[in-house]
Amino acid sequence: METGKFITLEGIDGAGKSTQLEFVVAWLQGKGMPVVVTREPGGTQLGEQLRSILLDNSTVMHPETEALLMFASRREHLDKVIAPALEQGKYVVSDRFTDASFAYQGGGRGVNWEKIGILESWVQGDLQPDLTLFFDIPVALGQQRVHAIKTRDRFEQEQLDFHQCVREAYVKRAQQFPHRIHVVDACQSVEAVREAVERLLERVRWNPPE
Amino acid sequence: METGKFITLEGIDGAGKSTQLEFVVAWLQGKGMPVVVTREPGGTQLGEQLRSILLDNSTVMHPETEALLMFASRREHLDKVIAPALEQGKYVVSDRFTDASFAYQGGGRGVNWEKIGILESWVQGDLQPDLTLFFDIPVALGQQRVHAIKTRDRFEQEQLDFHQCVREAYVKRAQQFPHRIHVVDACQSVEAVREAVERLLERVRWNPPE
Repeated sequence: METGKFITLEGIDGAGKSTQLEFVVAWLQGKGMPVVVTREPGGTQLGEQLRSILLDNSTVMHPETEALLMFASRREHLDKVIAPALEQGKYVVSDRFTDASFAYQGGGRGVNWEKIGILESWVQGDLQPDLTLFFDIPVALGQQRVHAIKTRDRFEQEQLDFHQCVREAYVKRAQQFPHRIHVVDACQSVEAVREAVERLLERVRWNPPE
Repeated sequence: METGKFITLEGIDGAGKSTQLEFVVAWLQGKGMPVVVTREPGGTQLGEQLRSILLDNSTVMHPETEALLMFASRREHLDKVIAPALEQGKYVVSDRFTDASFAYQGGGRGVNWEKIGILESWVQGDLQPDLTLFFDIPVALGQQRVHAIKTRDRFEQEQLDFHQCVREAYVKRAQQFPHRIHVVDACQSVEAVREAVERLLERVRWNPPE
């Protein structure tokens, strides 16, 4: 059986990831493809426990601790969800993955970029998403959308410059892996973003993994 | 101000670590030294949350996830407790540290030894304990003592061969670092073990760190 495909969605808060994730899933299901929808941090029983700790505003931790916890959650996610689904030929769609560690812990918190790369290799080996959609939006616009939400978590409540650094790290990462990470202009109308996503999905469907 | 000293106690369950830890602390305090007593996993608010997850019998996780969580807890422990205390010239006495990751996750769970070494460098850099007391005891004898305890945690409830592998990994680690890790025969009487510990403490007091 052919191995499935691994699709990740990335972006700062307020970029419209959730709306587009629903579209990605519906599009794949419309083609008759078996889809597993998941998220990071989380995706497993242990991962969701760690997510609660990581997103809790009362949690205090060193940025490198945060990076290690993200990769602990990811190791479990790979073992219990992602790898088994791919082996069964399924499409795995994840709301965030390792690019988010480079963006949030690297860009946002200032953890050394190379040190995050060491954890990436430690946890994933050669495994990478087949397609990553990076929904890019200016921080001010993203924040406007987030401000509509009543309660903000440990990451969402960070200041503008934090989110600016996160965005810049995402851009850097997309420049490093242009064949995998596709930048989608998330300032466009929902419909225009959707069309851009659809064009990218058509590509991954027929292309072999990088 | 002179930097403090970092003393760790290691051994399989039932080796008598807790009793000897009390003696180590009392001995140091008797010499007028400021002592910080701590433990792993744990030692910080976050670390204790992670300890609860790690020791809970209902928790399911991949061995590499377990290793990453241990080092996440350790990163926090170093940042919040160990490094600040050493900088203040205090003596830090920890019930288990990184040698336990090699023993339990490496020996017991089968995580690749070199991969644990990568996390050790990632989290600690060059920092190592000044003295490690490894209380060595045959598994059968250790288990006899543990069996007296009513409820056993996720590690204690493992089978004999698990603990045998843990012990062998501790022995291997002690052979790799003979100047730091001192093997104490924990089959002796409590008083004899105590005397052996005292002789080792006298050494660390006057010797500079390795």
